[in-house]
Amino acid sequence: MNPEISRLSNGLTIISDPMPGLESAAIGVWVNTGARNETPSQMGVSHMLEHMAFKGTATRSARAISEEIEAVGGVLNAYTSREQTAFHARILKADVPLALALLGDILVNPAFAEEEIARERQVVLQEIGQARDTPDDIIFDHLQAAIYPDQPMGWPILGEEKTVSSFSREMLRAYMASNYRAGGVTLVASGAVMHDQLVALAERAFADFAPGTASAPLPALYSGGDARFVEDLEQAHIAFAFPGLSNSDPDYYVGQLYTAALGGGMSSRLFQEAREKRGLCYSIYAFTSGFQDNGFLSVYVGTGEAEAAEIAAVVAGEMEAMAGNLSEAELARARAQLKASLLMGLERPAGRMEQIAGQLFALGRVQPPSEIIAQLDAIDLGAVKRYAGRVVETGKSAIAAIGPIARLENHERFARRFGGGDMPQAAE
Amino acid sequence: MNPEISRLSNGLTIISDPMPGLESAAIGVWVNTGARNETPSQMGVSHMLEHMAFKGTATRSARAISEEIEAVGGVLNAYTSREQTAFHARILKADVPLALALLGDILVNPAFAEEEIARERQVVLQEIGQARDTPDDIIFDHLQAAIYPDQPMGWPILGEEKTVSSFSREMLRAYMASNYRAGGVTLVASGAVMHDQLVALAERAFADFAPGTASAPLPALYSGGDARFVEDLEQAHIAFAFPGLSNSDPDYYVGQLYTAALGGGMSSRLFQEAREKRGLCYSIYAFTSGFQDNGFLSVYVGTGEAEAAEIAAVVAGEMEAMAGNLSEAELARARAQLKASLLMGLERPAGRMEQIAGQLFALGRVQPPSEIIAQLDAIDLGAVKRYAGRVVETGKSAIAAIGPIARLENHERFARRFGGGDMPQAAE
Repeated sequence: MNPEISRLSNGLTIISDPMPGLESAAIGVWVNTGARNETPSQMGVSHMLEHMAFKGTATRSARAISEEIEAVGGVLNAYTSREQTAFHARILKADVPLALALLGDILVNPAFAEEEIARERQVVLQEIGQARDTPDDIIFDHLQAAIYPDQPMGWPILGEEKTVSSFSREMLRAYMASNYRAGGVTLVASGAVMHDQLVALAERAFADFAPGTASAPLPALYSGGDARFVEDLEQAHIAFAFPGLSNSDPDYYVGQLYTAALGGGMSSRLFQEAREKRGLCYSIYAFTSGFQDNGFLSVYVGTGEAEAAEIAAVVAGEMEAMAGNLSEAELARARAQLKASLLMGLERPAGRMEQIAGQLFALGRVQPPSEIIAQLDAIDLGAVKRYAGRVVETGKSAIAAIGPIARLENHERFARRFGGGDMPQAAE
Repeated sequence: MNPEISRLSNGLTIISDPMPGLESAAIGVWVNTGARNETPSQMGVSHMLEHMAFKGTATRSARAISEEIEAVGGVLNAYTSREQTAFHARILKADVPLALALLGDILVNPAFAEEEIARERQVVLQEIGQARDTPDDIIFDHLQAAIYPDQPMGWPILGEEKTVSSFSREMLRAYMASNYRAGGVTLVASGAVMHDQLVALAERAFADFAPGTASAPLPALYSGGDARFVEDLEQAHIAFAFPGLSNSDPDYYVGQLYTAALGGGMSSRLFQEAREKRGLCYSIYAFTSGFQDNGFLSVYVGTGEAEAAEIAAVVAGEMEAMAGNLSEAELARARAQLKASLLMGLERPAGRMEQIAGQLFALGRVQPPSEIIAQLDAIDLGAVKRYAGRVVETGKSAIAAIGPIARLENHERFARRFGGGDMPQAAE
């Protein structure tokens, strides 16, 4: 990997990551604003802006945008997270200029036509309905709200009926003027791209992007808590969370190794204990969510009504035990999984683009794969075991649950399973 | 692409597809048996066998299988479809021999220990629960049942509580003995692989795979019909279907171009009319399901309770109109999308492996990308318009719907929107 970085005069960062031999490219623009930058009445506006980017510019209708990119077989898409809004394209080599022109136009010159805003509000309300119909999707909104109550970091990215229905042209324009500032925008291109061409194209496409930097969001405060919704579903969908690491934490890869050993693959502790040994579930896994100043570790499981009585003790038991008995073999497997996943990701343009954008946001620089490999190699068993102890000792767990959850133990009981030693640790 | 093909003496086919410069490989084994090969009491047994492959062999425990592959950072996974069961691995170059050894062992020497079968039945029951909690997943099981009533092609791949609970060791062994025959098995490897090495490794790993060929499944009969389930959901999840093409049909790519123009991207007719113009939905798309002797075309939409009253007329209106007014520009976009998707897929080992396996199953040979491009270029507007007419003239539509669907028009009324001309075609 040999990325080159340039900056436009308005402050916009450009990173090219050429991959010899490829005939296609992935190009994306990351804007450093998302759900956590919103006020209560703005809840969902970052996501609405993501949608409105496709709804027409000063010179292109919504239909023209989709027809131009698809006429060359390209794909244009976008997503909104808690901290960023990303717009990205997959195209063949010859269509890099078109992709840049389109990305620039939709971000610099959005039309925000009233009738398009009205229609798109309806589309987003449908998207909210779809998310609510997918328990293993909406559970993570409930979890986020339980972890970060009464703060933007805990709000749903899609917003709520009430706020989405209130979005006006003026409000969209005002939010964009404050939060879409070139100092917080990064353009990344991986694959069949050349840096000089990319910079020249970006200079033309993004010259009028507003300079400056948006104000930083308020710090997020991990609080922990409990959110339960009894619903008539086949499964109890349960997510447990614990305080984790920010994306720039020096122990970031310690956390990743821990999470892989806990619930990252078929040989992980949770998969082996909950699915392979006890047959309690089909899906169980652990993952991390990292932000600029904060983060959490989560375990998701989908299980039956009866099995929900046992699962909390199984999860707590495995987590409580790890500080004591994590083995060298488990650490070696976790390390091999992270390394192989990194190396295989390097073979895909979209994977490299995402990785570079994430690193720039978290660290302010692109991290060579060799540096990550060296970091992974330098972490010993003691470091991961100490981290395993830190995860469970804070007493700040969170639980979100949907479905037939009457038999899932309450939060207080779950919390007492950690650290104190005065409660039974095994399954009951 | 320069694939090489060999056959083992037991009839098993081996295809290698080297990709210069890659450091990883995708390797998969496709067994030509799936849900449509099952009798009523066997419903779900193909999928259960897929699970049991990971539950231990004569010399490896379930835990050992997962630990061996993950110790090198590899990923081993599997899936079951109506016609095939696939087992595949993603590994780094050096671990190709390990992947072959594991794939061979789990397919040739499964242990089927009684206690593992008992536990795995519980896991599959959880998987069934998870599918039922995901309306935009389970809707396609309902659609399949409506299209192919009272025949294996219409049965759920996962099986049902009653059949899954009945699976015994003897039954698994008997089904495997009949259906896992080397003449219907293909090993495909793309990426950092060499043909001679692959054949040598496969000879060792699959030497004891039973020779011969399984009996062919009964022909599938597209019937059409209606399946509706009123449920307390946010959205009405609706899938419409029409007779389509088998995977070996000479008009296969005519069907693909038609489907892309109808509902394949943001510029497609359905997306433009239902989402962009009317704001009725967030998700709407068309896709094809092709089998060896049969196929169908489907449109999925997730929409609101009130909007469900309008959506059927919108879908029917667009489909009815296409035979008359599909444009050269729409065809050109569909062609560009299919070509670019093909070319980008060639850059990913897993994508190439899937494509080669699919071609071998459908056509009995690997189709060079240049041949597909030439086929796409040779299809003119007249051919796609004629096909558009054929889709709607059969009168054999099917509908599956879940959620608040009281206002969705009945099947008879939907069917009358096509061909006759005596019913209003526009939205009401």
